Amino acid sequence: MKLFYYPGACSLVPHIALEEIGAPFDTRKVDFALGEQLSAEYLSVNPAGRVPALRTDRGVITEIPAILGFLARTFPESGLMSVTDHFEFARMQGFHMYIATTLHVLFRHISRPEFIIDGDEERRALVAKVPEMADHYFAPIEQRMADGRRWVHGDRYSASDIYLYVFASYLNLGDRGDPGKVPNIWAHRQRVRSRPAVDRALAREGGGMLSMAIFD
Amino acid sequence: MKLFYYPGACSLVPHIALEEIGAPFDTRKVDFALGEQLSAEYLSVNPAGRVPALRTDRGVITEIPAILGFLARTFPESGLMSVTDHFEFARMQGFHMYIATTLHVLFRHISRPEFIIDGDEERRALVAKVPEMADHYFAPIEQRMADGRRWVHGDRYSASDIYLYVFASYLNLGDRGDPGKVPNIWAHRQRVRSRPAVDRALAREGGGMLSMAIFD
Repeated sequence: MKLFYYPGACSLVPHIALEEIGAPFDTRKVDFALGEQLSAEYLSVNPAGRVPALRTDRGVITEIPAILGFLARTFPESGLMSVTDHFEFARMQGFHMYIATTLHVLFRHISRPEFIIDGDEERRALVAKVPEMADHYFAPIEQRMADGRRWVHGDRYSASDIYLYVFASYLNLGDRGDPGKVPNIWAHRQRVRSRPAVDRALAREGGGMLSMAIFD
Repeated sequence: MKLFYYPGACSLVPHIALEEIGAPFDTRKVDFALGEQLSAEYLSVNPAGRVPALRTDRGVITEIPAILGFLARTFPESGLMSVTDHFEFARMQGFHMYIATTLHVLFRHISRPEFIIDGDEERRALVAKVPEMADHYFAPIEQRMADGRRWVHGDRYSASDIYLYVFASYLNLGDRGDPGKVPNIWAHRQRVRSRPAVDRALAREGGGMLSMAIFD
Protein backbone atom coordinates (compact mmCIF):
# COMPACT_ATOMS: atom_id res chain seq x y z
CA MET A 1 0.00 0.00 0.00
CA LYS A 2 1.12 3.52 -0.75
CA LEU A 3 -0.48 6.61 0.77
CA PHE A 4 -0.38 9.87 -1.17
CA TYR A 5 -0.42 12.79 1.27
CA TYR A 6 0.42 16.43 1.82
CA PRO A 7 1.86 17.40 5.22
CA GLY A 8 -0.86 18.51 7.61
CA ALA A 9 -3.68 17.97 5.10
CA CYS A 10 -6.61 15.70 5.84
CA SER A 11 -4.50 12.81 4.52
CA LEU A 12 -3.09 12.75 8.05
CA VAL A 13 -6.23 10.80 9.03
CA PRO A 14 -5.47 7.62 7.02
CA HIS A 15 -1.76 8.16 7.72
CA ILE A 16 -2.32 7.78 11.46
CA ALA A 17 -4.68 4.86 10.79
CA LEU A 18 -1.94 3.08 8.84
CA GLU A 19 0.47 3.63 11.72
CA GLU A 20 -2.08 2.21 14.16
CA ILE A 21 -2.45 -0.89 11.97
CA GLY A 22 1.28 -1.47 11.85
CA ALA A 23 1.34 -3.26 8.48
CA PRO A 24 4.04 -2.16 6.02
CA PHE A 25 3.16 0.84 3.84
CA ASP A 26 4.89 3.46 1.74
CA THR A 27 4.12 7.14 1.55
CA ARG A 28 4.47 9.66 -1.23
CA LYS A 29 4.31 13.38 -0.57
CA VAL A 30 2.27 15.24 -3.18
CA ASP A 31 3.67 18.76 -2.95
CA PHE A 32 0.73 21.13 -3.27
CA ALA A 33 3.15 24.08 -2.91
CA LEU A 34 4.64 22.98 -6.25
CA GLY A 35 1.26 22.15 -7.79
CA GLU A 36 2.10 18.43 -7.95
CA GLN A 37 -1.56 17.54 -7.28
CA LEU A 38 -2.32 18.71 -10.82
CA SER A 39 0.60 16.91 -12.48
CA ALA A 40 -0.22 14.27 -15.09
CA GLU A 41 1.48 11.72 -12.84
CA TYR A 42 -0.76 12.44 -9.87
CA LEU A 43 -3.94 12.90 -11.88
CA SER A 44 -3.41 9.34 -13.09
CA VAL A 45 -3.59 8.30 -9.43
CA ASN A 46 -6.55 10.52 -8.50
CA PRO A 47 -8.27 12.44 -11.31
CA ALA A 48 -9.83 14.75 -8.72
CA GLY A 49 -6.35 16.07 -7.84
CA ARG A 50 -6.92 15.68 -4.13
CA VAL A 51 -5.29 13.79 -1.28
CA PRO A 52 -5.53 11.30 0.30
CA ALA A 53 -5.34 8.46 -2.16
CA LEU A 54 -4.40 4.93 -1.16
CA ARG A 55 -2.85 2.77 -3.84
CA THR A 56 -3.37 -0.94 -3.26
CA ASP A 57 -2.37 -3.91 -5.38
CA ARG A 58 -5.86 -3.81 -6.90
CA GLY A 59 -6.12 -0.09 -7.57
CA VAL A 60 -6.61 3.27 -5.92
CA ILE A 61 -9.14 4.15 -3.21
CA THR A 62 -10.07 7.77 -2.50
CA GLU A 63 -12.22 9.60 0.07
CA ILE A 64 -11.36 9.26 3.75
CA PRO A 65 -14.44 7.29 4.94
CA ALA A 66 -13.96 4.79 2.10
CA ILE A 67 -10.24 4.39 2.88
CA LEU A 68 -10.91 3.98 6.62
CA GLY A 69 -13.57 1.35 5.90
CA PHE A 70 -11.22 -0.52 3.59
CA LEU A 71 -8.34 -0.50 6.07
CA ALA A 72 -10.58 -1.55 8.95
CA ARG A 73 -12.04 -4.49 7.01
CA THR A 74 -8.70 -5.55 5.53
CA PHE A 75 -7.02 -5.48 8.96
CA PRO A 76 -9.84 -6.43 11.33
CA GLU A 77 -7.40 -7.22 14.15
CA SER A 78 -6.49 -3.50 14.24
CA GLY A 79 -9.89 -2.76 15.77
CA LEU A 80 -10.09 0.50 13.80
CA MET A 81 -13.82 -0.04 13.25
CA SER A 82 -16.49 -2.60 14.04
CA VAL A 83 -16.29 -4.63 10.88
CA THR A 84 -18.52 -7.64 11.40
CA ASP A 85 -21.43 -5.78 12.97
CA HIS A 86 -23.16 -4.04 10.03
CA PHE A 87 -25.04 -1.67 12.26
CA GLU A 88 -22.01 -0.52 14.26
CA PHE A 89 -19.96 -0.19 11.07
CA ALA A 90 -22.66 2.01 9.53
CA ARG A 91 -22.89 4.17 12.65
CA MET A 92 -19.14 4.72 12.58
CA GLN A 93 -19.31 5.54 8.89
CA GLY A 94 -22.16 7.95 9.64
CA PHE A 95 -19.83 9.78 12.04
CA HIS A 96 -17.10 9.94 9.41
CA MET A 97 -19.61 11.16 6.84
CA TYR A 98 -20.76 13.88 9.21
CA ILE A 99 -17.24 15.30 9.48
CA ALA A 100 -16.68 14.87 5.73
CA THR A 101 -19.84 16.74 4.72
CA THR A 102 -19.77 19.46 7.37
CA LEU A 103 -16.40 20.48 8.88
CA HIS A 104 -14.26 19.10 6.09
CA VAL A 105 -16.22 20.91 3.37
CA LEU A 106 -16.46 24.06 5.51
CA PHE A 107 -12.70 24.37 5.95
CA ARG A 108 -12.30 24.27 2.18
CA HIS A 109 -14.14 27.61 2.15
CA ILE A 110 -10.86 29.00 3.48
CA SER A 111 -8.40 26.85 1.54
CA ARG A 112 -10.28 26.77 -1.79
CA PRO A 113 -12.78 29.68 -1.94
CA GLU A 114 -12.52 29.71 -5.72
CA PHE A 115 -14.59 26.52 -5.70
CA ILE A 116 -17.46 28.27 -3.92
CA ILE A 117 -17.83 31.86 -5.05
CA ASP A 118 -16.35 34.54 -7.32
CA GLY A 119 -15.17 37.99 -6.27
CA ASP A 120 -12.73 39.20 -3.59
CA GLU A 121 -15.36 40.77 -1.38
CA GLU A 122 -17.62 37.72 -1.68
CA ARG A 123 -14.73 35.47 -0.67
CA ARG A 124 -14.08 37.57 2.39
CA ALA A 125 -17.75 37.17 3.33
CA LEU A 126 -17.46 33.42 2.80
CA VAL A 127 -14.40 33.13 5.04
CA ALA A 128 -15.95 35.41 7.66
CA LYS A 129 -18.80 32.94 8.14
CA VAL A 130 -16.55 29.93 8.79
CA PRO A 131 -16.01 30.31 12.57
CA GLU A 132 -19.76 30.56 13.24
CA MET A 133 -20.48 27.45 11.18
CA ALA A 134 -17.52 25.54 12.66
CA ASP A 135 -18.96 26.15 16.14
CA HIS A 136 -22.35 25.00 14.85
CA TYR A 137 -21.00 21.78 13.33
CA PHE A 138 -18.73 20.91 16.27
CA ALA A 139 -21.57 21.42 18.78
CA PRO A 140 -23.30 18.01 18.43
CA ILE A 141 -19.92 16.27 18.70
CA GLU A 142 -19.04 18.29 21.80
CA GLN A 143 -22.39 17.34 23.28
CA ARG A 144 -21.72 13.68 22.58
CA MET A 145 -18.28 13.84 24.24
CA ALA A 146 -19.68 15.64 27.29
CA ASP A 147 -21.00 12.42 28.86
CA GLY A 148 -17.53 11.52 30.09
CA ARG A 149 -16.74 9.00 27.40
CA ARG A 150 -13.06 8.47 26.66
CA TRP A 151 -13.43 7.92 22.90
CA VAL A 152 -16.01 8.91 20.25
CA HIS A 153 -17.74 5.54 20.40
CA GLY A 154 -17.31 4.96 24.14
CA ASP A 155 -14.53 2.92 25.71
CA ARG A 156 -13.04 1.79 22.46
CA TYR A 157 -10.55 3.79 20.40
CA SER A 158 -11.43 3.77 16.70
CA ALA A 159 -10.85 5.46 13.37
CA SER A 160 -13.44 8.05 14.38
CA ASP A 161 -11.08 9.34 17.08
CA ILE A 162 -8.37 9.94 14.52
CA TYR A 163 -10.72 11.84 12.21
CA LEU A 164 -11.95 14.04 15.05
CA TYR A 165 -8.41 14.67 16.35
CA VAL A 166 -7.20 16.00 12.98
CA PHE A 167 -10.19 18.27 12.41
CA ALA A 168 -10.19 19.60 15.98
CA SER A 169 -6.50 20.42 15.54
CA TYR A 170 -7.35 22.73 12.64
CA LEU A 171 -8.95 25.02 15.24
CA ASN A 172 -5.36 25.88 16.18
CA LEU A 173 -5.05 27.74 12.89
CA GLY A 174 -6.97 30.56 14.57
CA ASP A 175 -9.17 31.49 11.61
CA ARG A 176 -11.94 28.94 12.22
CA GLY A 177 -14.01 28.12 15.30
CA ASP A 178 -13.24 28.55 18.97
CA PRO A 179 -11.46 25.77 20.91
CA GLY A 180 -12.86 27.31 24.09
CA LYS A 181 -16.34 26.20 23.07
CA VAL A 182 -15.38 22.53 22.76
CA PRO A 183 -13.58 21.62 26.01
CA ASN A 184 -14.47 17.94 25.79
CA ILE A 185 -13.28 17.68 22.20
CA TRP A 186 -10.09 19.47 23.29
CA ALA A 187 -9.44 17.00 26.09
CA HIS A 188 -10.11 14.12 23.68
CA ARG A 189 -7.61 15.66 21.28
CA GLN A 190 -4.84 15.30 23.86
CA ARG A 191 -5.71 11.66 24.45
CA VAL A 192 -5.35 10.91 20.74
CA ARG A 193 -2.17 13.00 20.51
CA SER A 194 -0.51 10.87 23.18
CA ARG A 195 -0.64 7.73 21.04
CA PRO A 196 2.71 6.58 19.60
CA ALA A 197 1.11 6.08 16.15
CA VAL A 198 0.37 9.82 16.04
CA ASP A 199 3.99 10.63 16.89
CA ARG A 200 5.19 8.48 14.04
CA ALA A 201 2.80 9.92 11.44
CA LEU A 202 3.56 13.51 12.45
CA ALA A 203 7.29 12.87 12.35
CA ARG A 204 7.07 11.41 8.85
CA GLU A 205 4.93 14.26 7.53
CA GLY A 206 7.42 16.86 8.69
CA GLY A 207 8.71 17.00 12.23
CA GLY A 208 9.80 20.53 12.97
CA MET A 209 7.70 22.12 10.23
CA LEU A 210 5.97 25.12 11.73
CA SER A 211 2.60 24.19 10.23
CA MET A 212 2.68 20.75 11.83
CA ALA A 213 2.74 22.36 15.29
CA ILE A 214 -1.04 22.72 15.18
CA PHE A 215 -1.29 19.00 15.86
CA ASP A 216 0.57 19.22 19.18
CA MET B 1 -37.06 -0.42 9.34
CA LYS B 2 -38.54 3.03 8.96
CA LEU B 3 -37.25 5.62 6.50
CA PHE B 4 -37.72 9.30 7.32
CA TYR B 5 -37.94 11.28 4.08
CA TYR B 6 -39.14 14.45 2.41
CA PRO B 7 -40.61 14.16 -1.09
CA GLY B 8 -37.98 14.71 -3.76
CA ALA B 9 -35.17 15.29 -1.25
CA CYS B 10 -32.00 13.20 -1.29
CA SER B 11 -33.82 10.69 0.91
CA LEU B 12 -35.17 9.38 -2.39
CA VAL B 13 -31.85 7.53 -2.75
CA PRO B 14 -32.30 5.11 0.17
CA HIS B 15 -36.04 5.00 -0.59
CA ILE B 16 -35.38 3.52 -4.04
CA ALA B 17 -32.73 1.23 -2.53
CA LEU B 18 -35.31 -0.11 -0.06
CA GLU B 19 -37.72 -0.74 -2.95
CA GLU B 20 -35.00 -2.61 -4.84
CA ILE B 21 -34.35 -4.79 -1.78
CA GLY B 22 -38.02 -5.67 -1.41
CA ALA B 23 -37.93 -6.31 2.34
CA PRO B 24 -40.76 -4.77 4.38
CA PHE B 25 -40.23 -1.17 5.48
CA ASP B 26 -42.26 1.80 6.69
CA THR B 27 -41.87 5.41 5.69
CA ARG B 28 -42.52 8.61 7.54
CA LYS B 29 -42.72 11.93 5.74
CA VAL B 30 -40.92 14.73 7.58
CA ASP B 31 -42.67 17.83 6.27
CA PHE B 32 -39.99 20.46 5.78
CA ALA B 33 -42.70 22.86 4.55
CA LEU B 34 -44.11 22.73 8.10
CA GLY B 35 -40.68 22.80 9.75
CA GLU B 36 -41.13 19.26 11.09
CA GLN B 37 -37.41 18.57 10.66
CA LEU B 38 -36.81 20.87 13.64
CA SER B 39 -39.56 19.41 15.84
CA ALA B 40 -38.51 17.83 19.12
CA GLU B 41 -39.90 14.55 17.84
CA TYR B 42 -37.71 14.50 14.75
CA LEU B 43 -34.62 15.90 16.46
CA SER B 44 -34.80 12.87 18.73
CA VAL B 45 -34.47 10.76 15.59
CA ASN B 46 -31.74 12.86 13.94
CA PRO B 47 -30.28 15.71 16.00
CA ALA B 48 -28.91 17.23 12.77
CA GLY B 49 -32.50 17.85 11.58
CA ARG B 50 -31.84 16.38 8.17
CA VAL B 51 -33.21 13.52 6.10
CA PRO B 52 -32.72 10.70 5.36
CA ALA B 53 -32.65 8.78 8.61
CA LEU B 54 -33.22 5.04 8.81
CA ARG B 55 -34.58 3.69 12.07
CA THR B 56 -33.67 0.07 12.67
CA ASP B 57 -34.39 -2.16 15.65
CA ARG B 58 -30.95 -1.24 16.98
CA GLY B 59 -31.10 2.51 16.44
CA VAL B 60 -30.92 5.21 13.80
CA ILE B 61 -28.47 5.44 10.91
CA THR B 62 -27.90 8.73 9.08
CA GLU B 63 -25.88 9.85 6.02
CA ILE B 64 -26.65 8.29 2.65
CA PRO B 65 -23.38 6.36 2.09
CA ALA B 66 -23.64 4.85 5.58
CA ILE B 67 -27.29 3.86 5.02
CA LEU B 68 -26.52 2.35 1.60
CA GLY B 69 -23.62 0.37 3.05
CA PHE B 70 -25.80 -0.90 5.90
CA LEU B 71 -28.64 -1.96 3.58
CA ALA B 72 -26.25 -3.66 1.14
CA ARG B 73 -24.52 -5.64 3.89
CA THR B 74 -27.77 -6.53 5.68
CA PHE B 75 -29.38 -7.71 2.43
CA PRO B 76 -26.44 -9.08 0.44
CA GLU B 77 -28.75 -10.95 -1.95
CA SER B 78 -30.02 -7.57 -3.21
CA GLY B 79 -26.70 -7.01 -4.95
CA LEU B 80 -26.86 -3.30 -4.10
CA MET B 81 -23.11 -3.25 -3.46
CA SER B 82 -20.18 -5.63 -3.45
CA VAL B 83 -20.22 -6.57 0.19
CA THR B 84 -17.68 -9.35 0.63
CA ASP B 85 -14.95 -7.78 -1.51
CA HIS B 86 -13.46 -5.05 0.71
CA PHE B 87 -11.79 -3.32 -2.20
CA GLU B 88 -14.89 -3.16 -4.41
CA PHE B 89 -17.01 -2.07 -1.46
CA ALA B 90 -14.57 0.77 -0.73
CA ARG B 91 -14.53 1.84 -4.39
CA MET B 92 -18.31 2.00 -4.43
CA GLN B 93 -18.27 3.96 -1.20
CA GLY B 94 -15.68 6.28 -2.71
CA PHE B 95 -18.14 7.02 -5.53
CA HIS B 96 -20.93 7.72 -3.04
CA MET B 97 -18.60 9.96 -1.04
CA TYR B 98 -17.68 11.87 -4.16
CA ILE B 99 -21.33 12.77 -4.80
CA ALA B 100 -21.90 13.48 -1.11
CA THR B 101 -18.97 15.89 -0.79
CA THR B 102 -19.28 17.63 -4.17
CA LEU B 103 -22.72 17.77 -5.86
CA HIS B 104 -24.74 17.13 -2.73
CA VAL B 105 -23.01 19.89 -0.77
CA LEU B 106 -23.06 22.20 -3.80
CA PHE B 107 -26.83 21.97 -4.24
CA ARG B 108 -27.27 23.02 -0.62
CA HIS B 109 -25.79 26.38 -1.67
CA ILE B 110 -29.17 26.91 -3.32
CA SER B 111 -31.43 25.26 -0.76
CA ARG B 112 -29.61 26.42 2.39
CA PRO B 113 -27.42 29.46 1.55
CA GLU B 114 -27.76 30.66 5.14
CA PHE B 115 -25.36 27.86 6.09
CA ILE B 116 -22.67 29.25 3.80
CA ILE B 117 -22.68 33.04 3.75
CA ASP B 118 -24.47 36.11 5.09
CA GLY B 119 -25.99 38.92 3.02
CA ASP B 120 -28.48 38.96 0.15
CA GLU B 121 -25.99 40.03 -2.50
CA GLU B 122 -23.44 37.49 -1.31
CA ARG B 123 -26.09 34.75 -1.49
CA ARG B 124 -26.89 35.70 -5.05
CA ALA B 125 -23.18 35.39 -5.88
CA LEU B 126 -23.09 31.99 -4.18
CA VAL B 127 -26.06 30.69 -6.16
CA ALA B 128 -24.72 32.18 -9.41
CA LYS B 129 -21.61 29.99 -9.13
CA VAL B 130 -23.52 26.72 -8.76
CA PRO B 131 -24.04 25.83 -12.46
CA GLU B 132 -20.33 26.23 -13.24
CA MET B 133 -19.33 24.01 -10.33
CA ALA B 134 -22.04 21.45 -11.08
CA ASP B 135 -20.62 21.07 -14.59
CA HIS B 136 -17.16 20.74 -13.06
CA TYR B 137 -18.19 18.05 -10.58
CA PHE B 138 -20.32 16.07 -13.05
CA ALA B 139 -17.49 16.05 -15.63
CA PRO B 140 -15.44 13.12 -14.25
CA ILE B 141 -18.62 11.04 -13.90
CA GLU B 142 -19.64 11.88 -17.46
CA GLN B 143 -16.18 10.86 -18.63
CA ARG B 144 -16.51 7.57 -16.77
CA MET B 145 -19.91 6.85 -18.34
CA ALA B 146 -18.64 7.71 -21.85
CA ASP B 147 -16.98 4.31 -22.33
CA GLY B 148 -20.32 2.72 -23.13
CA ARG B 149 -20.88 1.10 -19.78
CA ARG B 150 -24.51 0.47 -18.83
CA TRP B 151 -24.13 1.17 -15.11
CA VAL B 152 -21.72 3.22 -12.97
CA HIS B 153 -19.66 0.16 -12.07
CA GLY B 154 -19.96 -1.62 -15.42
CA ASP B 155 -22.49 -4.32 -16.21
CA ARG B 156 -23.90 -4.51 -12.75
CA TYR B 157 -26.63 -2.23 -11.40
CA SER B 158 -25.82 -0.99 -7.90
CA ALA B 159 -26.63 1.60 -5.26
CA SER B 160 -24.30 3.99 -7.10
CA ASP B 161 -26.73 4.11 -10.03
CA ILE B 162 -29.53 5.21 -7.73
CA TYR B 163 -27.41 7.96 -6.17
CA LEU B 164 -26.38 9.27 -9.60
CA TYR B 165 -29.95 9.11 -10.96
CA VAL B 166 -31.33 11.30 -8.17
CA PHE B 167 -28.60 13.92 -8.41
CA ALA B 168 -28.68 14.05 -12.22
CA SER B 169 -32.45 14.58 -11.98
CA TYR B 170 -31.87 17.76 -9.98
CA LEU B 171 -30.47 19.27 -13.20
CA ASN B 172 -34.12 19.41 -14.30
CA LEU B 173 -34.66 22.16 -11.76
CA GLY B 174 -33.02 24.50 -14.26
CA ASP B 175 -30.98 26.53 -11.79
CA ARG B 176 -27.96 24.22 -11.62
CA GLY B 177 -25.75 22.70 -14.30
CA ASP B 178 -26.49 21.86 -17.92
CA PRO B 179 -27.94 18.43 -18.85
CA GLY B 180 -26.66 19.02 -22.38
CA LYS B 181 -23.11 18.66 -21.12
CA VAL B 182 -23.71 15.19 -19.65
CA PRO B 183 -25.35 13.12 -22.43
CA ASN B 184 -24.09 9.82 -21.05
CA ILE B 185 -25.30 10.58 -17.56
CA TRP B 186 -28.64 11.60 -19.10
CA ALA B 187 -29.00 8.32 -20.96
CA HIS B 188 -28.06 6.43 -17.79
CA ARG B 189 -30.75 8.39 -15.95
CA GLN B 190 -33.42 6.96 -18.22
CA ARG B 191 -32.19 3.42 -17.63
CA VAL B 192 -32.53 3.85 -13.88
CA ARG B 193 -35.91 5.57 -14.28
CA SER B 194 -37.30 2.55 -16.10
CA ARG B 195 -36.89 0.27 -13.08
CA PRO B 196 -40.12 -0.68 -11.28
CA ALA B 197 -38.54 0.10 -7.90
CA VAL B 198 -38.19 3.73 -8.98
CA ASP B 199 -41.86 3.86 -9.97
CA ARG B 200 -42.87 2.60 -6.56
CA ALA B 201 -40.69 5.02 -4.60
CA LEU B 202 -41.79 8.03 -6.69
CA ALA B 203 -45.46 7.07 -6.32
CA ARG B 204 -45.13 6.82 -2.55
CA GLU B 205 -43.31 10.16 -2.23
CA GLY B 206 -46.04 11.97 -4.09
CA GLY B 207 -47.25 10.87 -7.47
CA GLY B 208 -48.68 13.87 -9.25
CA MET B 209 -46.80 16.44 -7.21
CA LEU B 210 -45.36 18.98 -9.62
CA SER B 211 -41.94 18.90 -7.97
CA MET B 212 -41.66 15.14 -8.41
CA ALA B 213 -41.84 15.55 -12.20
CA ILE B 214 -38.11 16.32 -12.27
CA PHE B 215 -37.47 12.61 -11.74
CA ASP B 216 -39.28 11.58 -14.92
